[in-house]
Amino acid sequence: MQQVYVGKGRALDPEKYFIVIMNQIGNGLSSSSHTQNTSNFPNVQIGDDVRAQHHLLTEKFAINSLALVVGGSMGAQQSYEWAVRYPGMVKRAAPIAGTAKTTPYNTIFTQAIIDSINSDPAWQGGRYAVSIDVQLGLQRLAKLFTLMGWSAEFFNKERWRALGFSSMDEFITDFMIAYFAPMDPNNLLCMAKKWQQADVSNGRGDNLQAVLSGIKAKVFVLSIESDLLFPPADCEAEHKMIPGSEHHVLQTTDGHFAIFGTDAAFVEQVDGHLKTLLVM
Amino acid sequence: MQQVYVGKGRALDPEKYFIVIMNQIGNGLSSSSHTQNTSNFPNVQIGDDVRAQHHLLTEKFAINSLALVVGGSMGAQQSYEWAVRYPGMVKRAAPIAGTAKTTPYNTIFTQAIIDSINSDPAWQGGRYAVSIDVQLGLQRLAKLFTLMGWSAEFFNKERWRALGFSSMDEFITDFMIAYFAPMDPNNLLCMAKKWQQADVSNGRGDNLQAVLSGIKAKVFVLSIESDLLFPPADCEAEHKMIPGSEHHVLQTTDGHFAIFGTDAAFVEQVDGHLKTLLVM
Repeated sequence: MQQVYVGKGRALDPEKYFIVIMNQIGNGLSSSSHTQNTSNFPNVQIGDDVRAQHHLLTEKFAINSLALVVGGSMGAQQSYEWAVRYPGMVKRAAPIAGTAKTTPYNTIFTQAIIDSINSDPAWQGGRYAVSIDVQLGLQRLAKLFTLMGWSAEFFNKERWRALGFSSMDEFITDFMIAYFAPMDPNNLLCMAKKWQQADVSNGRGDNLQAVLSGIKAKVFVLSIESDLLFPPADCEAEHKMIPGSEHHVLQTTDGHFAIFGTDAAFVEQVDGHLKTLLVM
Repeated sequence: MQQVYVGKGRALDPEKYFIVIMNQIGNGLSSSSHTQNTSNFPNVQIGDDVRAQHHLLTEKFAINSLALVVGGSMGAQQSYEWAVRYPGMVKRAAPIAGTAKTTPYNTIFTQAIIDSINSDPAWQGGRYAVSIDVQLGLQRLAKLFTLMGWSAEFFNKERWRALGFSSMDEFITDFMIAYFAPMDPNNLLCMAKKWQQADVSNGRGDNLQAVLSGIKAKVFVLSIESDLLFPPADCEAEHKMIPGSEHHVLQTTDGHFAIFGTDAAFVEQVDGHLKTLLVM
């Protein structure tokens, strides 16, 4: 995230702003089944991430006002949660390629992710010896993200060439499968379940309209034209519930994973919108 | 197909036309590993289907001119093959939600379908005793088609209610999983491989542009707006290679599986285009 979105002259300019980048709980860097060496890591919610981040910002850094909360995918889920949970603290929010409440379609996708791991007999209910034991499950997971994380056009236009690969098979094997292969299966399950359960209206009356209409921050909803997981229509529906918000659709053929910075033109669009938002 | 697309007053009106509906090779009704009781059924190509159909039409029915060749998905692949292979015989063709050459993205999807079956240890290289032994593989396949066969909007707007289900879980279990559960895994593999290898330029110089530009039939390329497997852009690219062809994008939220007739408004659009084509 830092390399893609932060820099001098960028919207997120460390010479102008005190920028804090968080790792999410369960991802193997923050507290997770991997770091705690347990197959019995608790079921974590997006709200747990945001509460922990709030502790850090207020107690460690004594920050009580945030110029901007921004994040992509599960970071977008956190951005929405921040704006809902701490309305007096968040001046602006920019959820990118994510929703405040997980859609039915993403419930199906995250369940397929969960099943790809726990259908591997080597997973053993989470009590595998080393993560590589679950390599077949991890490969299935990588292939699901290959199908849904990019877009048809990404493959049909051979956009993987721009990432330095000479064939689609090489890209799938040496990038997608290789990317997930060293990850811890229980960590991935923890994050997939957190994604699946994400819903800012949970515990707040289950009324999404009412919860989103209470947001005080200036919100730019940023969706991705070719995103198979968070299609613009889903983001548009939530934008309409947030007073004074704007919805901008980012143009790229790279689908959801454009958030990783594979398309320079996409990153420029994000930068432009964040600059506009930051002077509002 | 007959129930959805054929009828008095429809474009495909049996009082006006002699209509022949074919089952494809490998599907369990035509010749297939299931009907031949073999795990060693040959690798079949779309061209094999079309040649067999040609034999039937010319030798059994003495038909030497076809007013229209029409089909959806793998039927679209056959329609393109017909127009290319027998240019003097096919007056009109209407490939619906399919391509003349399988796209890279569909190569990935079909490989995921293939892997969902053959990664099940119970498949045993095709030598399972009964198909239900491979139920875990069949369930994974059903879930892949759940993700890619419909669309995000289909689930987010709860379109499954129109199919008579009261919850998404019920729809997935009682429709999608139940639909594929009785199918023969080797049949499904045969068809998935045929889909994966589909390419009208194969054996004809591997030059798609040259092959499609030689089509003599009047072609209506019909794609589906929300189709994740055959996005309109892919169909548009092929339409541009076919002289005098038209490309019409069908509006529905039901994705690829709209071809099964789940959306009456979609079926009406198809009917309208076929009627227009048939008087050209």
